[in-house]
Amino acid sequence: MEGYRVLEIKQSVFENNDREADKLREQLKQEKTFLLNLMSSPGSGKTTTLKATIAALKDEFRIGVMEADIDSDVDAATIEKTGAKVIQLHTGGMCHLDAGMTKQGLIGLGTQDIDFAILENIGNLVCPAEFDTGAVKNAMILSVPEGHDKPLKYPLMFSICDVLLINKIDVLPYFDFDIEECKKYVLRLNPNMKIIPICARTGEGIDEFAQWLREQITAWNA
Amino acid sequence: MEGYRVLEIKQSVFENNDREADKLREQLKQEKTFLLNLMSSPGSGKTTTLKATIAALKDEFRIGVMEADIDSDVDAATIEKTGAKVIQLHTGGMCHLDAGMTKQGLIGLGTQDIDFAILENIGNLVCPAEFDTGAVKNAMILSVPEGHDKPLKYPLMFSICDVLLINKIDVLPYFDFDIEECKKYVLRLNPNMKIIPICARTGEGIDEFAQWLREQITAWNA
Repeated sequence: MEGYRVLEIKQSVFENNDREADKLREQLKQEKTFLLNLMSSPGSGKTTTLKATIAALKDEFRIGVMEADIDSDVDAATIEKTGAKVIQLHTGGMCHLDAGMTKQGLIGLGTQDIDFAILENIGNLVCPAEFDTGAVKNAMILSVPEGHDKPLKYPLMFSICDVLLINKIDVLPYFDFDIEECKKYVLRLNPNMKIIPICARTGEGIDEFAQWLREQITAWNA
Repeated sequence: MEGYRVLEIKQSVFENNDREADKLREQLKQEKTFLLNLMSSPGSGKTTTLKATIAALKDEFRIGVMEADIDSDVDAATIEKTGAKVIQLHTGGMCHLDAGMTKQGLIGLGTQDIDFAILENIGNLVCPAEFDTGAVKNAMILSVPEGHDKPLKYPLMFSICDVLLINKIDVLPYFDFDIEECKKYVLRLNPNMKIIPICARTGEGIDEFAQWLREQITAWNA
């Protein structure tokens, strides 16, 4: 039997998502729970990155993961093996999560024993960027095979994130991906973006991401 | 000066998208214009595939391309070099195109001298699957780096398409992508899906896709 629950989340009824998101952040601050919202295209390596990141931080923080998917449990089953607390959220076709939906997920997950909660958002570079989930920080992954021109095509996503992981750098020799060009595009949209090249599969760069997270979580939960 | 126009398309006002899509198909039938709707994740290789496909078919059909993007002209500039007629559609943040928006694009493109029109949809595996654009056939690309589990996670997209191009097969040695497993997942959702492995960059498999298109276009425009 699987050790994770599956929660069918409903479209939220709040008209003012930004206000709901602010309220959720206040609540997380009081509860000393840091929430990271992780976004990317389908297949950029969100789940593999989470596995490596959980391995790096699980002895320091109590970690809980919300795996949002339209209709499968593949990722929850993978994350469960890391030992982190995990819940699968089914969005029923919805292409993003807003603050109300994230709150349903957090209630389902139970945050009273969680220092570091992670929302693995739907694989989509468009819609999730438009909705504040109530997360403390927004992270995104761009993988090398997707191409370095993506900041030009999905500018909002690159504008609202705090950290960008450039994943699958092990396959750089096989793709026309110019990291410096990519950084230039990103920093033009978002001068404060922290950019970390990684390879989630081999673990390269995960230490730097873990260190960034450590600082954010410690500051928030202080 | 660029040879393509940029059209800011507006959200359509029609309540019944399915009816609008059917009306658009009827009109395309009368005009002897075949419309293909091409969908995929960001960075799967839609534009590169189109370039190779246009090169294979441009001596047989008069081709017109609508490049839908949230906010850039990168793809229209690329396609223009093929000699095909091209228009850039800006969706102003919208994550998909519906039939009304597609119709605006077709009017902007001008279909009176086009046998084969192509809509390059927004890079997104979720929302575009939910809206009938009025296209005669739906095509999608899944690229090897995205992983063979995507049919499990984005089932609607794989259910509504007529042809699936598995792109970037040149990098199969560097990724854990099981083509047979992928086909099994896809055919379970959609037993009629035509599946063609390709490498858009080298042109591998493009002949088979061009032949499939040739048959569809000829039948529709007869």
